[in-house]
Parts: sequence; C-alpha cells; structure tokens
Amino acid sequence: MLEQGFDFTIQANCPNTLARAARLTTSHGLVETPVFMPVGTQATVKTLTPDELTDIGATIILANTYHLYLRPGVDVVAALSGLHRFMGWNRPILTDSGGFQVFSLGHLRRVDDEGVVFKSHIDGSQHLFTPASVIQLEEQLGADIIMAFDDCAPFTEDRQAIERSMERTHRWAEKCLAAHQHPAQALFGITQGGTFPDLRRRSASFIAGLGFPGFALGGLCLGEPKEVMHAMIEESVAVLPRDRPRYLMGVGSPEDLLEGVSRGIDMFDAVLPTRIARNGALFTITGRKNIRNAGFRLIDQPIEPGCDCYTCQRFSAAYLHHLFKSEELLGHRLATIHNLRFLHRLMAHVRQAITSGTFLAFKTEFLASYRTTDQTVRLAQKQKWLIAQRAKGAGQQSM
Amino acid sequence: MLEQGFDFTIQANCPNTLARAARLTTSHGLVETPVFMPVGTQATVKTLTPDELTDIGATIILANTYHLYLRPGVDVVAALSGLHRFMGWNRPILTDSGGFQVFSLGHLRRVDDEGVVFKSHIDGSQHLFTPASVIQLEEQLGADIIMAFDDCAPFTEDRQAIERSMERTHRWAEKCLAAHQHPAQALFGITQGGTFPDLRRRSASFIAGLGFPGFALGGLCLGEPKEVMHAMIEESVAVLPRDRPRYLMGVGSPEDLLEGVSRGIDMFDAVLPTRIARNGALFTITGRKNIRNAGFRLIDQPIEPGCDCYTCQRFSAAYLHHLFKSEELLGHRLATIHNLRFLHRLMAHVRQAITSGTFLAFKTEFLASYRTTDQTVRLAQKQKWLIAQRAKGAGQQSM
Repeated sequence: MLEQGFDFTIQANCPNTLARAARLTTSHGLVETPVFMPVGTQATVKTLTPDELTDIGATIILANTYHLYLRPGVDVVAALSGLHRFMGWNRPILTDSGGFQVFSLGHLRRVDDEGVVFKSHIDGSQHLFTPASVIQLEEQLGADIIMAFDDCAPFTEDRQAIERSMERTHRWAEKCLAAHQHPAQALFGITQGGTFPDLRRRSASFIAGLGFPGFALGGLCLGEPKEVMHAMIEESVAVLPRDRPRYLMGVGSPEDLLEGVSRGIDMFDAVLPTRIARNGALFTITGRKNIRNAGFRLIDQPIEPGCDCYTCQRFSAAYLHHLFKSEELLGHRLATIHNLRFLHRLMAHVRQAITSGTFLAFKTEFLASYRTTDQTVRLAQKQKWLIAQRAKGAGQQSM
Repeated sequence: MLEQGFDFTIQANCPNTLARAARLTTSHGLVETPVFMPVGTQATVKTLTPDELTDIGATIILANTYHLYLRPGVDVVAALSGLHRFMGWNRPILTDSGGFQVFSLGHLRRVDDEGVVFKSHIDGSQHLFTPASVIQLEEQLGADIIMAFDDCAPFTEDRQAIERSMERTHRWAEKCLAAHQHPAQALFGITQGGTFPDLRRRSASFIAGLGFPGFALGGLCLGEPKEVMHAMIEESVAVLPRDRPRYLMGVGSPEDLLEGVSRGIDMFDAVLPTRIARNGALFTITGRKNIRNAGFRLIDQPIEPGCDCYTCQRFSAAYLHHLFKSEELLGHRLATIHNLRFLHRLMAHVRQAITSGTFLAFKTEFLASYRTTDQTVRLAQKQKWLIAQRAKGAGQQSM
C-alpha cells in the first residue's frame, strides 16, 4: 500500500563512506537523519518527561507493542486517542512489533508458522501474536512508523535454525503487508540472517523486493564481535535500496553509531544509553565514566565541561556522585538527560560532517579520543563467540 | 547573638483565629508565611530538580544535618561552597539538626547530658553529636535557618522520661546558642514537652526566654490523636512570643496545615506529601486518592481538573495510573509535583484568606469537602494512644 505523508529525501552523501544525511517526513513531523531514537518501552522514556526529551533534541522516540499490549492494553491506549496523546508526545513515534521481546521470553513462548503463543512476563497469562494481529495492534497504538513482526532467532543458533527463522520472517513480512491498512503509518520491513553473509544478503534482497518504505536490520548487536556486526551491516546495506531509510535495531553506543553511519545506516535505537545512565555510567568525549567512582567526590565541575545538557549546565560531578551514592532518583534523571543529550549532540555533529563532506575525519578524530569498551572485554567476547561457532560444527558459512 | 539579614514581619492577623500572614526575610530572600517547606533530606527533594521546585512555588526547603553529615560529609558540602551551591538551590534553606533522626535510631544510639553517641545507619560506624558540634556542622552547611539540637523523646514514654528529655533539650538549647557564630544564619529554638500541657508550657516559656529569633514545636504528629496535637500546639503558642515565627515540625497533611495555621503556626515541613506521592497517593480537593486504583484506568482527565501543576496540565489520570502500575519512575516525579503544588496552592489560598479576614470560612469550607484520614483509622489510633497512656500509670497530667 502507499504510505500517505511519508517521505525520505537524501540531502547529502559523504565521499569515501556510505554515510548520508536525509530528511524523513512522517505524520507527526520531520526527522533529520542519521538519528538516534530514545526508547520509551512502556510509553515513557524512563525517568523523563516529553518536554525534557524535546530539550534534549529528540525528534522521534520508540515504544514497544509487546509491553503496551500487556500493560495498559492496546485497547486502553486506543480509547485514550492513541500513543501520542496518551504519553503527551506530539513528535514522531516508532513502535517495535515486539518480535524481539517475545522471542526473548525463551521457554515462555512457542513459535510456529502461524505466530507465537507466549506467556506474559507479568502474570503468566497466555497470548497469541500473529503477523496480522501485531499489525492491527500497532495500528491501534497509532505510531508514525510501525515495524513488521519478525522471528528473531538468537545468533548462537546453527545455520539451519537461523535460516528457518529468516524464511519465517519473510513469510510473516508478506502477511504484515497484507494486514496493513492505515496509510498514515509507514510499515518498515525487518531483515534477518544471523551472522551468515549469504543469508543477510538473501534476506535483504527478499524484504527489499516487497517494497517497504523503510528497512530494518534485526538480530544484530546481541553479543557477536563488532567486526561481524560491521560485516553483516555491509552485506545488508549493499542489497537494500539506496533511496529508503535503513534502521539498525538495538544499537546505541557512540562508537557503534559512528560505525553504523559510515556503513549507510540512517536510524538507530537502544536502551543502552538510558539503562547505563541509571547505573551511573556517563558518556563523555573521552569515553564512559562511572559517576560512583570516588574520584568524583569533590569535583566542582560538570561531568563533561562544555556540554550543553541541563545536567552539566546546572550540577557538579560531585553532586551527581552524591545522588548516586545516596540512591536518589534525581541521579537517574540527570544521568539519563546527559547520556541522551550526548548522543543527540553527537548525531548533530555527524549530520553536519556528512553535509560538509568531512564525516570520515570526524569519525576518526572522535574514535581516537573516545575509549571504547575495554579491549580485554572485547577479546573475551570474541573468544566466547568463536567457541559458540565451533560448537555449531565446522564447514558452515558463518563469518 | 544578633542575626544579620533575618526579619519576621506580621502583615495580617485573622479575626477569630490565631492565623497570621507574615514575611520572613533570610540571607537568600523572602518567604511568605504560612509556608509549607518541602523536605530534601539528602540535599534533594526526592525525584525533583530545583527548577521544578521553583515552578511548584517552593520558597524554602529543608535539608537534614544527620544525613548530610554521614553522606556526602559536611566537609564535602563545605568544600563545594555550601548547601545552596551544592544542590543548585538559591532560595532559603532550613537545616534540621538531626535530633529527631538520631533519636529515631533507637538501640543504635546512647544519650547523656553531653550529647548522643550513635551508629551510622549506613555503615555502622560510631559518631558523637553534641549541641556545639551540631551547630558547627549546620554552620558549615550554610543554611539560612538552622535548628537547635534537641532531645526528642517518643511521646509514648512516661512523664518522667519526657520531662528529663525536655530539661536536657533546654540545657542543650543554651549550649547551641553559645556555640552559634555565623550571624547570617538564624538559629531557631525547639520546644518539647510530649503530650503534657504543663510541660509544653514550661518548655515554650524556657526556650522563649533564651531569645531565639524563631521557635519550633518538636515531638508532635508522631501518632498521638489529632485533638491532643491541637491542644499541645495551643499550649505552646500561648506562651511563645507573638512577634517571632512558629514552626510545627513534621506536619504536612492539608487538614493538619489548616489546623496548625488557625492555631498560630507559620511554618511546616513533612516528608508525608512526597512520600505518599511515591506510593501513588495524591491530594485532591475531595481528599487523597490512590492513582493505582483501577477506576483511573481510562480517565482521560487530569487527576485534579483545574489544578495548574505540570502533571495535571500535561497528563491524564489514566497515564499516571499506567506509570504506577508499570513501576515507572516518571510516575513518582509527576505525583510528587502534584502533591507539592497542591500544598503550595493551598497555602497561597490560606494566606489570601488570612489577609482578607476570611480564613475561618475558608478552613471550614475546605475541610467540609476534604475527606481526611478514615475515621476508623483515627479511632484505632486513638485507642492505641489511650492504652499507651494507661500503661504509663494513672494520675499523670497528660491529656
């Protein structure tokens, strides 16, 4: 079906990379890309008001169909005039279909070609999600962009299982398209394929062929080594149409955003920046810092001098340190504001650099000063992954 | 000593009651009374920023010497230029001495005439508070109004114990005055006396004689019946000088504020409005309502239509209900904002009514529609109190 009021216009391509700056038009306004979308799983970006999100520079946020279906119920949100009105946010919203959440339930769910029968993580009650029913739920919630219902197999499964999930995702994508009725909402397709380059290409090719107005890369950033994630992005992006937005699901660290943008990704979301904020981990230009560290006890400076966020403008690192040590909820808020503002400032710089053709230099410079995840941690992660690969048996085409 | 920059000017007395409207001048600005002071125990009014407190209409807030002494340490606050700068609040602050908190530690403390030896509720480390040491701590914190260190015996103790505590409070009051050195801070005396009318009068008379610029009533609203609390306020106020502010410690329900004001109280503080907010209990003109109640599930109206608080202006009761059912921290914030704004609006009405001589009518009208604590609960509370009184032995002069 033809989406009404939806548009994606590329404004600049950056030489020597696949990075591009574009403008996404939705029923609730414009989104400039590349963009990071804060996650408001239960119709609230944890600890923040919609006005604070506006101050941070957020132009589009996420909500989750699975969670809202269980609580307060999609019927309740619909009765209250939809998600925008319900949560007091008048800018664009994207709803995830809940595919990832349902599959994360593990033994609480049973999948067949029809759909997924699962037990609520809240009260154990039994429910059925099918591609058609999920699209109907997303239409009732009323987000501007809605996601297809996919079968998201863990990357640790063997090729056969990954391939079966991918094929099912493809059939479900067709069913989602057939069920989609509201032209004011843009339905995005999700590509899968685990860590198998040929499956990634096949999936991107198949989903692209269905003609969605936008495409997501699912099943990545789930523990596989960064190099593998990068390769999978490259395989998928090579096949996806250049004139449609590309959305890398579940990615939200500064370094991963830059790597994604340089490989042609336009949209990102992740709970990471808000979740680590509540644990006291704060993004700074030199890397993550934990505000609980005793070194901050007497620092009468913002956590990041020069940052324009409310937290840095108003409070010292010493005060934030005190709030976290004293388990005060204001600390969670202030850290969340800082981390989200950090990512939005980063993406504004990225956009500007793409437009002026200097993105590659910007990325190199940023990554040179930003201390990413500890090398030891990354090596351990890679070894774990290699062991898992070996356990699947030799001779498979996985990277 | 003479306080610099401190002043209390009565602007209106209300006929047929002891209610008065006044203006309190402190080093950090004006406070119009009667006033409710939100409690920021650990240098933060739980969940809120200073800017939100300003929006709510707060003109003075509390912080607690006991808590700040233990964490982050008074030396840390002092090194960071004092409490105002540390917490980003430029209006007046009152610090409680920590007397009540230390005595609430029960078996973790040992009192003698010198002071109190206590164990930290955080790490069990041992500390000593004396009247002089507490005043020094409060001077380092730098609040505009600081409280004397008192011996706050539980009202359930017998007359002899209450009297002994009171006498000790009196001797400590003298020591606090002698130790007080910073003229920019106004040191308030605290009167005690349990629920014994004659002790209340004696204590008020003694403390008044020491010439403090302001006076607090301690040891009330701790479980005694409302009638008893009212009588004790009356006994104390009858003796305290009319030209100085009177502060009823630990009182913060709408009905108690009105009863206090009508008996001549100018200042109040309590954790009640913010604590019950985090449990989902919200003040409305018809009484407290619990937002978790299923009846709010579909209410597309603010919790109190007509309320000008941020919460009521922006969100429906249904959304608040959802936030509480989903255990989202934004719910705590929004409920806290509403309850504090409710009390500040109430006190603004009270002030206006006093000035126009209609306070008594206002009070009667408000209490007629406001459903106070359930009668059953109050009766049970009264019976418990009577039993405790009987256990103390007959023939005592307690009310």
